[in-house]
Amino acid sequence: MSKNSIQLESLSGFHIGGSVHDLTGFPLGLQFKNEGKHVLGQMYAQHYRLAFPRCETPVSFWHGGGLTGASWETTPDGRSGWLEHFLREGFSTYLCDAFERGRASLPPPHTVGQIPEYRSVDSIWHHFRFGKDGLDPDAIFGDPRGAAYHGQQFPVESLIAFGQQFVSRFVDTDCQALAAYAAFLRRVGRCFVIGHSQGGLFAVQSATAHPHLVKAVVAIEPPMTEGALKAIELEIRAETPPHLFIFGDYISGVSKTWERFLSNTQRFREVLHRAGVPCELILLPERGIRGNSHMLQMDRNSSEIAEIVVNWLLNLDELR
Amino acid sequence: MSKNSIQLESLSGFHIGGSVHDLTGFPLGLQFKNEGKHVLGQMYAQHYRLAFPRCETPVSFWHGGGLTGASWETTPDGRSGWLEHFLREGFSTYLCDAFERGRASLPPPHTVGQIPEYRSVDSIWHHFRFGKDGLDPDAIFGDPRGAAYHGQQFPVESLIAFGQQFVSRFVDTDCQALAAYAAFLRRVGRCFVIGHSQGGLFAVQSATAHPHLVKAVVAIEPPMTEGALKAIELEIRAETPPHLFIFGDYISGVSKTWERFLSNTQRFREVLHRAGVPCELILLPERGIRGNSHMLQMDRNSSEIAEIVVNWLLNLDELR
Repeated sequence: MSKNSIQLESLSGFHIGGSVHDLTGFPLGLQFKNEGKHVLGQMYAQHYRLAFPRCETPVSFWHGGGLTGASWETTPDGRSGWLEHFLREGFSTYLCDAFERGRASLPPPHTVGQIPEYRSVDSIWHHFRFGKDGLDPDAIFGDPRGAAYHGQQFPVESLIAFGQQFVSRFVDTDCQALAAYAAFLRRVGRCFVIGHSQGGLFAVQSATAHPHLVKAVVAIEPPMTEGALKAIELEIRAETPPHLFIFGDYISGVSKTWERFLSNTQRFREVLHRAGVPCELILLPERGIRGNSHMLQMDRNSSEIAEIVVNWLLNLDELR
Repeated sequence: MSKNSIQLESLSGFHIGGSVHDLTGFPLGLQFKNEGKHVLGQMYAQHYRLAFPRCETPVSFWHGGGLTGASWETTPDGRSGWLEHFLREGFSTYLCDAFERGRASLPPPHTVGQIPEYRSVDSIWHHFRFGKDGLDPDAIFGDPRGAAYHGQQFPVESLIAFGQQFVSRFVDTDCQALAAYAAFLRRVGRCFVIGHSQGGLFAVQSATAHPHLVKAVVAIEPPMTEGALKAIELEIRAETPPHLFIFGDYISGVSKTWERFLSNTQRFREVLHRAGVPCELILLPERGIRGNSHMLQMDRNSSEIAEIVVNWLLNLDELR
């Protein structure tokens, strides 16, 4: 990775998607006039356009649930993130905030018919595979390194800095998020989509629905439920773009949830293979890369994993 | 303004401020575990560090109420924003999302003791001085150019794109926002702060409280209430940094609210003068620059106004 300066031709930000709605039904006693016209359904993206890209096709980063585009920037312990890594590798990039997250704006709950959720940091401790389930939250925060799995690559001592990144979310707004991402893809044109977690599943779903707008999908630990798998596999065609899936450590025998998502991803890989769609599934421990959490773009070896992705993208033409 | 490429030494993002809280009291029926440890009180910033800055002191952009850092990026009608303008002029910059806004994360309402507000786009039509009060919202959206004040510089035909930028907010969280901005200033060190609207008032308040951390304040149309003025003026000392205030058009005889904010800013200018603090107040119409709305960094002549600010910053040393 070059440590020269990053030469940008331009840097821009924009919202895309959504439409105007006449809203009523706000709680009484508000200070401003909330009733009236609102734009709902939009997402947000920042575009870093390189002056001299190595690759004509730009990369889009789609974050995971409860997070924002910030999860691709500086890691919680202050190292360069994948955004900077891919720019230095010569990819123009789009850094996205999905519908309802971050700068995209959380819509008024009564327009969604749900109550926003705020996942606690200790509740993701086991789900993100930092360490065992059922630990006392004070013990986790008091000695995160001691509480973590042996060999853990996530910088758990920066758990508070990671906790700063969380935003509220709804749990049943996938259709709105996918509609906004479709509007995004129509606007920016054919790109690579690198998605993490929920954003990885959105990437797979979007590539299946809009194969001409996605050159390839990199899905990092997508929450591939049986329902998601069933819906996508029916849509797979020969023109579905190539897929790379990456999963970290502490899955087998540790987390039933992630065993299930991995197993469904393995089934999806078979569907893609039968359709003649190039697909690679990397289980990092099988390559001798151990200790990776669910947040592998923030783990201590995040640059090593970024390099795997860069090489896969650059060698794509050999896959077909 | 140079149209050469922007050479960044690095680009990073971080959250700053806030602390860990044990939260309970979430609504029943949520799908995730919301009870537990949360980080509350943080803000967010992106740092664009130039490889060859023209000026050693970086610029921080602090957005207005109900908006995010996106309000300094591309304008709603697709022109380069002030962020790109100042980078091309040779200033390293920090693009901030205040406490509770955008990527900083809206905290759970019950922890704030308030209901979040969502200002409607039509309700800001008059408040942001795009056009007359009391117009039918459908008329505004049906023909924004026809509904706007004569000579309006805001790109009102892009009203929906502007509406996409709005985020929810609380109305009485200034103390939390200022605490996070103080943490931000301590982290990044001495900088220029360019604040718009609510962010402009935060800039004035922060510069007064932390004169050694702010080299100069540019406050664009701060909502200078009598209460805010009274609280700040007591703290003014000789070491308070220089101030530049900018106000747009359609104030006198059109908007009582803005007449009041301008009049209080004029009183504050006298306080600064008496203390020997350099202060300039620019009323754009007095310079023959007409038609500017409250969103003057998005107005059609936004680059012209950016140039005024750049020149003021570069000539600061002559002010003392």
